[in-house]
Amino acid sequence: MLTLKQIVATLGGRLHGREDIVIHGIAPLKTAGAGQISFVAQAKSLKQAAASQAEALILSASSLQSLQGKLPAHTAVIEVDDPYLYYARLSQLFVRHETVTAPLHHPTAAIDASAVVDSSARIDAQVVIEAGAVIGPRCRIGAGSVIGARAQLGADTQLHPRVTLYADCLIGQRCIIHSGAVIGADGFGFANDRGAWVKIAQLGRVVIGDDVEIGANTTIDRGALGDTVIEEGVKLDNQIQIGHNTHIGAHTAMAGCVGVAGSARIGKHCMFGGAAMILGHLEIADRVTVSSGTLISRSITEPGMYTGIFPAQANADWEKTAAVLRQLPDFRQRLKALEVLLSQANAPNDKE
Amino acid sequence: MLTLKQIVATLGGRLHGREDIVIHGIAPLKTAGAGQISFVAQAKSLKQAAASQAEALILSASSLQSLQGKLPAHTAVIEVDDPYLYYARLSQLFVRHETVTAPLHHPTAAIDASAVVDSSARIDAQVVIEAGAVIGPRCRIGAGSVIGARAQLGADTQLHPRVTLYADCLIGQRCIIHSGAVIGADGFGFANDRGAWVKIAQLGRVVIGDDVEIGANTTIDRGALGDTVIEEGVKLDNQIQIGHNTHIGAHTAMAGCVGVAGSARIGKHCMFGGAAMILGHLEIADRVTVSSGTLISRSITEPGMYTGIFPAQANADWEKTAAVLRQLPDFRQRLKALEVLLSQANAPNDKE
Amino acid sequence: MLTLKQIVATLGGRLHGREDIVIHGIAPLKTAGAGQISFVAQAKSLKQAAASQAEALILSASSLQSLQGKLPAHTAVIEVDDPYLYYARLSQLFVRHETVTAPLHHPTAAIDASAVVDSSARIDAQVVIEAGAVIGPRCRIGAGSVIGARAQLGADTQLHPRVTLYADCLIGQRCIIHSGAVIGADGFGFANDRGAWVKIAQLGRVVIGDDVEIGANTTIDRGALGDTVIEEGVKLDNQIQIGHNTHIGAHTAMAGCVGVAGSARIGKHCMFGGAAMILGHLEIADRVTVSSGTLISRSITEPGMYTGIFPAQANADWEKTAAVLRQLPDFRQRLKALEVLLSQANAPNDKE
Repeated sequence: MLTLKQIVATLGGRLHGREDIVIHGIAPLKTAGAGQISFVAQAKSLKQAAASQAEALILSASSLQSLQGKLPAHTAVIEVDDPYLYYARLSQLFVRHETVTAPLHHPTAAIDASAVVDSSARIDAQVVIEAGAVIGPRCRIGAGSVIGARAQLGADTQLHPRVTLYADCLIGQRCIIHSGAVIGADGFGFANDRGAWVKIAQLGRVVIGDDVEIGANTTIDRGALGDTVIEEGVKLDNQIQIGHNTHIGAHTAMAGCVGVAGSARIGKHCMFGGAAMILGHLEIADRVTVSSGTLISRSITEPGMYTGIFPAQANADWEKTAAVLRQLPDFRQRLKALEVLLSQANAPNDKE
Repeated sequence: MLTLKQIVATLGGRLHGREDIVIHGIAPLKTAGAGQISFVAQAKSLKQAAASQAEALILSASSLQSLQGKLPAHTAVIEVDDPYLYYARLSQLFVRHETVTAPLHHPTAAIDASAVVDSSARIDAQVVIEAGAVIGPRCRIGAGSVIGARAQLGADTQLHPRVTLYADCLIGQRCIIHSGAVIGADGFGFANDRGAWVKIAQLGRVVIGDDVEIGANTTIDRGALGDTVIEEGVKLDNQIQIGHNTHIGAHTAMAGCVGVAGSARIGKHCMFGGAAMILGHLEIADRVTVSSGTLISRSITEPGMYTGIFPAQANADWEKTAAVLRQLPDFRQRLKALEVLLSQANAPNDKE
Repeated sequence: MLTLKQIVATLGGRLHGREDIVIHGIAPLKTAGAGQISFVAQAKSLKQAAASQAEALILSASSLQSLQGKLPAHTAVIEVDDPYLYYARLSQLFVRHETVTAPLHHPTAAIDASAVVDSSARIDAQVVIEAGAVIGPRCRIGAGSVIGARAQLGADTQLHPRVTLYADCLIGQRCIIHSGAVIGADGFGFANDRGAWVKIAQLGRVVIGDDVEIGANTTIDRGALGDTVIEEGVKLDNQIQIGHNTHIGAHTAMAGCVGVAGSARIGKHCMFGGAAMILGHLEIADRVTVSSGTLISRSITEPGMYTGIFPAQANADWEKTAAVLRQLPDFRQRLKALEVLLSQANAPNDKE
């Protein structure tokens, strides 16, 4: 519960309206009502904004101008440069503040005597911290998480419940790791000995920079010889698989179910749609966007958007498309043959 | 171990044969033998049924008629309307009854003093139940599961080991949640601030109806502002990812590895094959079937089956197909050119 | 830290150079330096090998011959038949030996009184072992893992932290199971009763042979009536989903994110690229390779490599390709029409 005065004092922006208005929460334009604030991030939402029952709106200068005279008289407005970014910052003020149970280190946690746990860190129930691990100031380790031997967490990093960090892996500051994530399991490496697979021990680590977020049940494998590296500001959604020795550049974002095979080197500021797949041993330049469901099998050297999706159709139509698809090489030959035939047919005609 | 009399008394059906026959288990037609019961769900299995050594068969009236005189004299038959449905119900009678260890609340469980746990609920070892959570009558919380603050479980819901339920999420009655599932992790939402990502706090919940089953390692994200909603009777297989604010209609079923991006609205009684992908902010009508491996990028307004799969070929053939595929727009032009050329060539001919 | 003498004494190979050279670790050719050993697995790496600063190299006889006179005088060489296989075996000697904390059975572990745990097995913190489970000699059960009732582990099998093994499932000897894996959850089986799904109890087990490795967050469902079987030497990467009643032949390897639907029967010595999908109720012969991202919807009876990938393009090009793709059946007809027209047009011409 915040007044508009408090919001603007904390996040900036120019307030048009009464500063004692109390805001209980954020809501979409459609459903926002008394005590709720909403925002306009796209021009196409202006009509909805005009009809919104929100107590207050976050608007850009141009949106405010467009809505002049169209908003209810009582609607307050916070005018800002980037309403969506302002909404992101505002949302963080409305996180429900959980009552922190004392003591900070839950008595059921199993913390090895040789681990170094900062006294300001919160260690929840059933956590396991193995020998030599280091937990930085103000970290929070969620219930049932396991921190392997000699692993290290920087300050202010939060592990949600049931995260596994294997031995020797490093996580930076202010990271958020969601439940079920597994960081540092063995990469998939085997040599073949007359049909049977011989394991290649995975001797590297996972090294994660600052301000990285990792989604639920995402897995990041440790390197075979060197390290798997996730640079600062990378955001990974749920159920992502990152193979060993992969290097992901700063501020790259990947949506759910993406897979990256081993030894890929991915640039900074890239974006990957859901279920995109990146094969191994290739390089992706900075600022590349890969569409959902697209498999990348060659290096990409130029920024831009890349796609490879089989378009969905009604099943009966797809069956026809798929049947013809396999005849494509034959089509090429037949097309070529027709062109040759016609050029021959026309050639004498021209002479007539 | 049940007699045919007991089975028919519990589940109905008309028995042809001795009611004191003892059934130890269910088996497929091929392998069923003494003491085992099998079933015919499809007409194509009739020949196998005639050769089966099963002690008893579950048959429809029409299957029974087809098999008249072809079954061994000693084979008992339960005649029912829907043999597959009968098999489903029968299978539940053969679940191995685990010896329940006393006490119901395992001493290693860490249950916050403010949590409300019904005295009939079974809480296994190493479970964590945080402040204000509510566990309904006859629930079973598997070992190592974590129930977040203020989360609620309806009566008779079972969590298998190592499930995470984040704070404030709600699960209905008679649900089954498999190991490794994560319900209520943050949705994937960020605003961009000059290249760096700013987190949008995910303020909504996950709300799950009655009779929902959720597979192993499946993840369902909490809503950004509103809730992510899974209606009653939905069945989700393993390794599924459900993005924030998604709404899944009642009795929809999804096979393994399906991904649903944020804010999708999916109808009732839909079916999704394995690894189908649904992009965000779109609507799928009731009774839509999406084939395995198909990516849906636009709303679907009509019931029916939809597919988009690149057909697998021997690799050498695929290489040819793929090479030609990129020339398709060129093909179209060449085809058009040929048609124009021929229509011009034929036009004068017609005049001759 | 090993001398070359110790390495050759343990793993074989013919040493060219001083046997008292001390090796601290393994590194790629590019980065290897003092105290490090590297290897040449492919002819294309010979040039890099000649420039490498590695203290020692693992080479085949033919690589050694090619490099004669090109290596620094001080570079030692171990000559072996298969350098990559030798590297695999060598890597195992360099696994960091963790200090084993006494006692072997951590006091926070919850071990049912009726479980049979070999005295040489190591049981880490917060582990749960339920009634009647059997843990073989020298097993290691990682922190927070849950072993269901009557499940059994063969000798020398290692579970990393937070693995779930459901009741009654069997794992062989010398297996490695990574964190978050769930073995034995219910297969996805339901009968439909007027729109609502009725659960088919999954009465089978998962049975896993010797020397199997299973990746992080991989799920293997128990059988409906019979068992799901993983034969010896199978290697599964992370985030793989194996449906109920599947049978995977010995020494088959699957990369990350692969999905196998129910009742598939997969041969021995197969290889599956990342995110390959295998539909249910089909058979794959021995020695089949399926490319990454390929969906297999029919049985494969011949060894070989199979592929079905939509090639990625710059997005603008893909939009054109995708648009034409749906017109393919129409193309076929138009091409056919042109051919008929031309053959008719040419026929009279020939008569002229």
